[in-house]
Amino acid sequence: MSVVTIERKVLEKNDEVALRNRTLFTDHGVYVINMVSSPGAGKTTILEKTIDLLKGKTRLAVIEGDVQTDIDARRIERSGIPAVQIVTRGGCHLEANLVHEALQSIKLAELDLLVIENVGNLVCPANYDLGENVKVVVASTTEGDDKPLKYPAMFRNAAVLLINKIDLVPYINARPDVLRKNAFSINPHLVVFETSALTNQGMDAWAQWLLDQATKTKPAR
Amino acid sequence: MSVVTIERKVLEKNDEVALRNRTLFTDHGVYVINMVSSPGAGKTTILEKTIDLLKGKTRLAVIEGDVQTDIDARRIERSGIPAVQIVTRGGCHLEANLVHEALQSIKLAELDLLVIENVGNLVCPANYDLGENVKVVVASTTEGDDKPLKYPAMFRNAAVLLINKIDLVPYINARPDVLRKNAFSINPHLVVFETSALTNQGMDAWAQWLLDQATKTKPAR
Repeated sequence: MSVVTIERKVLEKNDEVALRNRTLFTDHGVYVINMVSSPGAGKTTILEKTIDLLKGKTRLAVIEGDVQTDIDARRIERSGIPAVQIVTRGGCHLEANLVHEALQSIKLAELDLLVIENVGNLVCPANYDLGENVKVVVASTTEGDDKPLKYPAMFRNAAVLLINKIDLVPYINARPDVLRKNAFSINPHLVVFETSALTNQGMDAWAQWLLDQATKTKPAR
Repeated sequence: MSVVTIERKVLEKNDEVALRNRTLFTDHGVYVINMVSSPGAGKTTILEKTIDLLKGKTRLAVIEGDVQTDIDARRIERSGIPAVQIVTRGGCHLEANLVHEALQSIKLAELDLLVIENVGNLVCPANYDLGENVKVVVASTTEGDDKPLKYPAMFRNAAVLLINKIDLVPYINARPDVLRKNAFSINPHLVVFETSALTNQGMDAWAQWLLDQATKTKPAR
């Protein structure tokens, strides 16, 4: 029972810090997404392509979360936008306080959009609020169509689903329509985009949606 | 600090039960693998094909671990071998005591080989011994070649690496040689097989290796 109590305290403490993050984001009019997926679903590549599409149209920065290495932050920095790497050293998800620390290195006043790329994990990040506006879950067609049923918390807590690697459908036993149906059975409110970060299919629609959210969030000056 | 202490207690307790499982397996001469990977890397499909190749040559059973649903156990049962489903209800990995409970439904005396398919997760299952002989990590070519560097604990604690979906290499930016090099930089002792559960490439070699281990483990009667 003591473990359960501490786990609840950890989540309560996390929610407090998440609220502080959210207040900071709102005060600065910054729209924030928390990107989650299995390892290798394509979050970082999607992000690189999204940056290409949005550069000059909105001011964005990225916080990268990984168990180990700063490979992803270095990839993002090559896109020419600010990137901060959080290394969890074994931790299977980001927590609000890690994001809060990372914010020390980010100038919120100069941003419209902040993307937090979480640790690649379909379980742990589901229940940790970071202060974001929405969670965006990326599911690759190569992972099979049953993932929303097997990892329901993640799909329930997300607002957007990107069905990525849609270009591979002809080569594999993928059924994106079944994936979509399974996702809607868990969360009928999901906004869904089919994307390929390799061929750019669907990337314009996704980037435009993101830009619209960031624009709506910006307070009138 | 109290959380850390409890975490250590949880792991110590887990190790005690894992040792009991291991004693049971050894006493019955059953070879046990703990299959780990990202969600959707192909563990269950590999398992279905492996069962097809080994049926009649060895007596095997499967324990399936999932956050939710018994989809995988039902898939395995269709192969005509015993399957037990553990549902962790949000837990991001199997623990030794869950496996111990599942063993109540499995006749070890009638087995040579037991496959435990863990929750799809490249982080949490790394540090939980279930009593297995070896951990087998499955990495799909579609996940990119940097996963051993980003999730080192899993690759360090595994004895075997299956590079799966090798048939997709022509269609994606995959570099299985780089994946292999990165994996060896973390763990030079890995036994590596390149497989496709779809085209059956490499499946014979992998199944034969597994059969050899199970045969070696069986005590003379």
